[in-house]
Amino acid sequence: MRLRFTKMHGLGNDFIVIDAISQRPNLSPETIRSLSDRRFGIGCDQVLVVDYPTNPEVDFRYRIFNADGSEVENCGNGARCFAKFVRERKLTGKSSISVETSTGIMVLKVNDSGEIRVDMGEPEFTPANIPFIADATASSYAIEVDNQCYNIGAASMGNPHAVLVVEDVETAPVLTLGPKIENHPAFPNRVNVGFMSVVSRTEVNLRVFERGVGETLACGTGACAAVACGIQQGILDSTVTVHLPGGDLTIHWEGPNHALFMTGPATSVFHGQVRI
Amino acid sequence: MRLRFTKMHGLGNDFIVIDAISQRPNLSPETIRSLSDRRFGIGCDQVLVVDYPTNPEVDFRYRIFNADGSEVENCGNGARCFAKFVRERKLTGKSSISVETSTGIMVLKVNDSGEIRVDMGEPEFTPANIPFIADATASSYAIEVDNQCYNIGAASMGNPHAVLVVEDVETAPVLTLGPKIENHPAFPNRVNVGFMSVVSRTEVNLRVFERGVGETLACGTGACAAVACGIQQGILDSTVTVHLPGGDLTIHWEGPNHALFMTGPATSVFHGQVRI
Repeated sequence: MRLRFTKMHGLGNDFIVIDAISQRPNLSPETIRSLSDRRFGIGCDQVLVVDYPTNPEVDFRYRIFNADGSEVENCGNGARCFAKFVRERKLTGKSSISVETSTGIMVLKVNDSGEIRVDMGEPEFTPANIPFIADATASSYAIEVDNQCYNIGAASMGNPHAVLVVEDVETAPVLTLGPKIENHPAFPNRVNVGFMSVVSRTEVNLRVFERGVGETLACGTGACAAVACGIQQGILDSTVTVHLPGGDLTIHWEGPNHALFMTGPATSVFHGQVRI
Repeated sequence: MRLRFTKMHGLGNDFIVIDAISQRPNLSPETIRSLSDRRFGIGCDQVLVVDYPTNPEVDFRYRIFNADGSEVENCGNGARCFAKFVRERKLTGKSSISVETSTGIMVLKVNDSGEIRVDMGEPEFTPANIPFIADATASSYAIEVDNQCYNIGAASMGNPHAVLVVEDVETAPVLTLGPKIENHPAFPNRVNVGFMSVVSRTEVNLRVFERGVGETLACGTGACAAVACGIQQGILDSTVTVHLPGGDLTIHWEGPNHALFMTGPATSVFHGQVRI
């Protein structure tokens, strides 16, 4: 069949977005892999499929697949692209869109400037739930790497994050220290590693070494976790602009017992048709 | 404007192909760069623009731009995609297509199986014309790298090539020895470096370290130069299948005073529209 798609990105994290409502494609893992190939296919980090909800109370269901064909749970950058897509393709006129993901229901708000606010849920600091091996919950922990001691924050945003505060993200040892912390025995499921420099109480720079991937242009959950840890440590206010290599996100968190919100852009690059 | 394009590849060397006959886009270097970006744009190695000829005797003119916006002279993989494109888009019904490039007129033949034969011109072995510093023309030369001596063939297919015959391309030191020969003082304009293992007189394996780029999936001129050198050295027949990492090419050369022909596939991946 001839499959219509839209290529989108959220701060350089790029997606093939497929409307599976007006088309009913059979997307096998092999098809996902071949679409994702950047030279022999269309090319993307992930394929995002917009479908009917199974729950009649929500507007849509969305599924997200890695380039290797495996299904993943959620992705902040993908969620923003999803919201932009259903509005642009006129699948909905709502500015508040509820969507079913494999981890639950999510509500996305499209604001007047076209940016999308995503409810990312409440950050989880309990070590066992990250998972992280520590005696008790704290706002920072000392861990040892190569006989050197580093202070880290630790949180889960559905996936585990370690956050280091550094003087300067440009010179931070992201590519050398990142993989060592990623594989540190205190993180049984490994960990994403953020290197954050604090410009002011409302502005930070961030580079993230993603678990199993390496450094990326814009890790949405990494931005959430970094700000959440900074707020817990008392060094950041409740609304923070995060400068990532791919662009900016705004994180808002009122503290414990509140959901954290991430606001950022999504961009449609082109529309295409491919034979599958 | 909304620009229609086709994404194509020749053995994994990938192109955005633009019909500038039915559309008249303004393709500034900045636009080329932004279209070529694999995350923020469409993504490709090169942008190929199909236009009216300036010479009324030929069918088309084609121009080819690197992802950095600079114009390049020619590209065998691009020429095959060009021929496939003008036939698929019904810009011509001819199976022998003449095209103006910045280096002259080229004739492309589309055969019954859909593969395209490209006249690549005559290989140039005169050292000064490669350019390569040597006392006289020979079918092989000894050069020294890190106090070790290597035998190479040297030829130009419009661009300079050095060719080493190796036992096994899998284990050949493409990434370590490649850049050292690329920058060897005997090649004043640097050189593309091919590592060829001979399966039989009609079949070789080839990996190419491209000048200024690194190893690529399929270097068309590298395949031509490797076979031309092998024929000059008396180890190959006039028609040779070349197995490259991206797929196969067939090279045919009858020897001095004859043009060399390269035959291979071109694949259309998808059609799209992008705002420029």
